[in-house]
Amino acid sequence: MQLYGDERLDYLLSKDMKIIQSPSVFNFSLDAVLLANFAWVPIQKGNILDLCTGNAVIPLLLSSRTKGKITGVEIQERIYNMGVRSVQYNDLEGRIQLIHGDLKHMPEQIGRHQFDVVTCNPPYFQTPKPSEQNLNEHLAIARHEIMCTLEDVVRVSSQLVKQGGKVAFVHRPGRLLDIVTLMRKYKIEPKRLQFVYPKVGKEANTLLIEGIKDGNADLKILPPLFVYEDNNEYTKEMNAILYGAE
Amino acid sequence: MQLYGDERLDYLLSKDMKIIQSPSVFNFSLDAVLLANFAWVPIQKGNILDLCTGNAVIPLLLSSRTKGKITGVEIQERIYNMGVRSVQYNDLEGRIQLIHGDLKHMPEQIGRHQFDVVTCNPPYFQTPKPSEQNLNEHLAIARHEIMCTLEDVVRVSSQLVKQGGKVAFVHRPGRLLDIVTLMRKYKIEPKRLQFVYPKVGKEANTLLIEGIKDGNADLKILPPLFVYEDNNEYTKEMNAILYGAE
Repeated sequence: MQLYGDERLDYLLSKDMKIIQSPSVFNFSLDAVLLANFAWVPIQKGNILDLCTGNAVIPLLLSSRTKGKITGVEIQERIYNMGVRSVQYNDLEGRIQLIHGDLKHMPEQIGRHQFDVVTCNPPYFQTPKPSEQNLNEHLAIARHEIMCTLEDVVRVSSQLVKQGGKVAFVHRPGRLLDIVTLMRKYKIEPKRLQFVYPKVGKEANTLLIEGIKDGNADLKILPPLFVYEDNNEYTKEMNAILYGAE
Repeated sequence: MQLYGDERLDYLLSKDMKIIQSPSVFNFSLDAVLLANFAWVPIQKGNILDLCTGNAVIPLLLSSRTKGKITGVEIQERIYNMGVRSVQYNDLEGRIQLIHGDLKHMPEQIGRHQFDVVTCNPPYFQTPKPSEQNLNEHLAIARHEIMCTLEDVVRVSSQLVKQGGKVAFVHRPGRLLDIVTLMRKYKIEPKRLQFVYPKVGKEANTLLIEGIKDGNADLKILPPLFVYEDNNEYTKEMNAILYGAE
């Protein structure tokens, strides 16, 4: 398999898989791993969609939890291409399909309300002045709401998920009110909310939220997840998520 | 001092204060203690208002944290009267004033935008059919949205607090979306949100939230608060809140 530029073929945690990454184009984040662990997926079959899929890290991780069909959508061709080669390398073309395209066009392109589950690790930052954006266009598009806003992501997720299907996002706590307001606007009722704290005694720096399309109001706040111990090693629960070790 | 019916004069935690309680009329809850600990108060001076004040537990607790003037509003005369006697017993008439009345009338009765801080531990439960309500009217009014709804509480708090002043509530996690939606509707921007978990590994059962009138969007999720250890003793942090011990 061909690697380009500064690409590397990295082990994907303990999943018996490898994934193409590149410091100058795209590396997967801890948040993607957390979302792939948090989201509910059907075990035996079903249609799962990951928006803003990047190098397909979430589809690859989810493929170890479900036998369903997983579709990923990525707008940046360079990063989409990394994902395609990673899926091929892991012999997962039969279960993971990647689409190079704009998520905003997906309801027309692939049809409405076809998916049991939609996941998305969207760009976190509202678009600043161009002078304040990351000069690396690949990284800027992945991190800033340049090609899609949070409202685009929530609206499109709602158009793509089946009634009664689940939609899961990871985001920053500062956007909690925006995300829950948008979810309710687009009829995805928040059901499970979990905050991730870097350490005991620190403020949360990540949130995980899952809603049900046309669901009833009944929100649970899951136990907090701590990433690091005081000595900067991963906590036992984080190790279990990353490496399956207890 | 006169006690009526099944009233008792209980120690109020470690505050060198006593408070009148009654199993058949009103006992203060852990949630009131958590709110009195969570809410920001000015140390030296200021006007503080506690709505749904019950037997004045929150004003009494806050009086150990502020030299400001504290006003409490309670709609049930029987419970208001317990609060008045508790304030007298603790020689706090100069700093705590209680009003027997309906919070919905307070903006007209005591004037708009007079308070630096408003706190409220409101009734938690949306009003069920009368057949499902607590048969004890005192307890039913304290627990169910019979005399006031959550929207009443948030709207009136917004009318009573100064611009830039703080409003703090305690509630159930299942009402998180309602409470933040109502806060934004009435221009109280949520700034600090803390979840309280009965134990490690359990879902949250209480939320504490503070907003600023006409504030900017910038929500922090505070470290989680755990109430009990696995052995059912209070955690160290809970002991510190209850008894000042570290």
